[in-house]
Amino acid sequence: MPRYRLDIEYDGTGYAGWQHQDDHPSIQQAIETAIRGFCGETVRIRAAGRTDAGVHAWGQVAHVDLEKAWPDETVRNAVNAHLQIAGERVAIIAARQVDDEFDARFSAIKRHYVYRIICRRAPLVIEKNRAMWSVKPLDIAAMHEAAQVLVGRHDFTTFRSVQCQAKSPVRSLDRLDVVAGAQAGLIEIHASARSFLHNQIRSFAGTLRLVGEGKWTAADVAAALAARNRKACGPVAAPEGLYFRAVDYPETVG
Amino acid sequence: MPRYRLDIEYDGTGYAGWQHQDDHPSIQQAIETAIRGFCGETVRIRAAGRTDAGVHAWGQVAHVDLEKAWPDETVRNAVNAHLQIAGERVAIIAARQVDDEFDARFSAIKRHYVYRIICRRAPLVIEKNRAMWSVKPLDIAAMHEAAQVLVGRHDFTTFRSVQCQAKSPVRSLDRLDVVAGAQAGLIEIHASARSFLHNQIRSFAGTLRLVGEGKWTAADVAAALAARNRKACGPVAAPEGLYFRAVDYPETVG
Repeated sequence: MPRYRLDIEYDGTGYAGWQHQDDHPSIQQAIETAIRGFCGETVRIRAAGRTDAGVHAWGQVAHVDLEKAWPDETVRNAVNAHLQIAGERVAIIAARQVDDEFDARFSAIKRHYVYRIICRRAPLVIEKNRAMWSVKPLDIAAMHEAAQVLVGRHDFTTFRSVQCQAKSPVRSLDRLDVVAGAQAGLIEIHASARSFLHNQIRSFAGTLRLVGEGKWTAADVAAALAARNRKACGPVAAPEGLYFRAVDYPETVG
Repeated sequence: MPRYRLDIEYDGTGYAGWQHQDDHPSIQQAIETAIRGFCGETVRIRAAGRTDAGVHAWGQVAHVDLEKAWPDETVRNAVNAHLQIAGERVAIIAARQVDDEFDARFSAIKRHYVYRIICRRAPLVIEKNRAMWSVKPLDIAAMHEAAQVLVGRHDFTTFRSVQCQAKSPVRSLDRLDVVAGAQAGLIEIHASARSFLHNQIRSFAGTLRLVGEGKWTAADVAAALAARNRKACGPVAAPEGLYFRAVDYPETVG
């Protein structure tokens, strides 16, 4: 059966998240329904990351096996047409036939996320549901410095949801950079790792926000990490600031 | 009576435009209602530009006269609170008490707009209603070169709506730059002038798109301008790509 890699963008607002759920709209269901509309096949797709309700993606990756082979452009355009007809805020940026060993989830070697915060006194309107709103200005340099405490291989029990189903709380965090964005008041937190725990980046963002407000220091973040205790975490940041940006795969796969 | 300058951001989606209209939601009405909610005064506000339905603003400017004086921050925060309660996608970025001679419309010496186009095969989802979608790639250099034909003092009859109420079709266009934006596929058209005619920038954008697609040359744009005939214009570009970015006032006013 031909396997296709799908690169996917979505506005997570109003969706229950990536994963199929009874009685709630999901990104996965939207795409599976569009594929059925296009070629009549009932499929199950697998993604690199199961994003939560309200979380967006510029570069989610999934794969799907179809009975029949189609040109790449036909898959992209036809699935997009069905997504548009259904009013879904999901688009297939690219579709490409890949080898059978390509697995969107298990072949991934690095995942990249961005968390966006906009600091200003006025509520967000053009960026509503597209970023976290902070009324207070945040100290970007202090946030970046504190973030470096978290980079490396650690037990991230403090920074994962109590519902996290991963067997081990140990992960290697490759990058956690806090930088000024291209527009006034915008702060971007760039996070990269082979894999993340449930709510890990939103837990980082909420904790770093405390640092940005001057309530916490880098030493407080280090103590929270060392505590290996969920109760030591800052408040989990809102989902609408989080974007699944890209996934890296080995060149030999896909 | 104390006069306040209001700097305003809005998502124009779903609004009939800036100006008050019976039976249709307008930005002006939303703000006037919020001001009444805040201080009980029934006011009429005047803006630098009357944007059309679906057009956005990062930096619209208006002024309002109130019976009673309030601290600037109180005006901004209270009007924003009432806008939020009403579910309006409008925010007051700044409020500032100004001299009586400040008039948001008549004191303006330059208006700045941006028209955003995103070129890609997939429909827009995160940027839906935030930019024009072009399935075809566009030649930015050719668009910019052709745009320079329009800069300067001209009779812009070709590029204004037949409904335009301005007495003269002659305007001085200071800037019309076509540049690559910060994200993949994004093209920005930057337009600046003391004042614009109705639909002028959207008429420019639709015409320059023809140049970007290779259907028109700079010479065709020059011929359209010289024709002084609305029928010579390219198709008017969609409102969702247009943003009212900023207004300049003399330093001596306000």
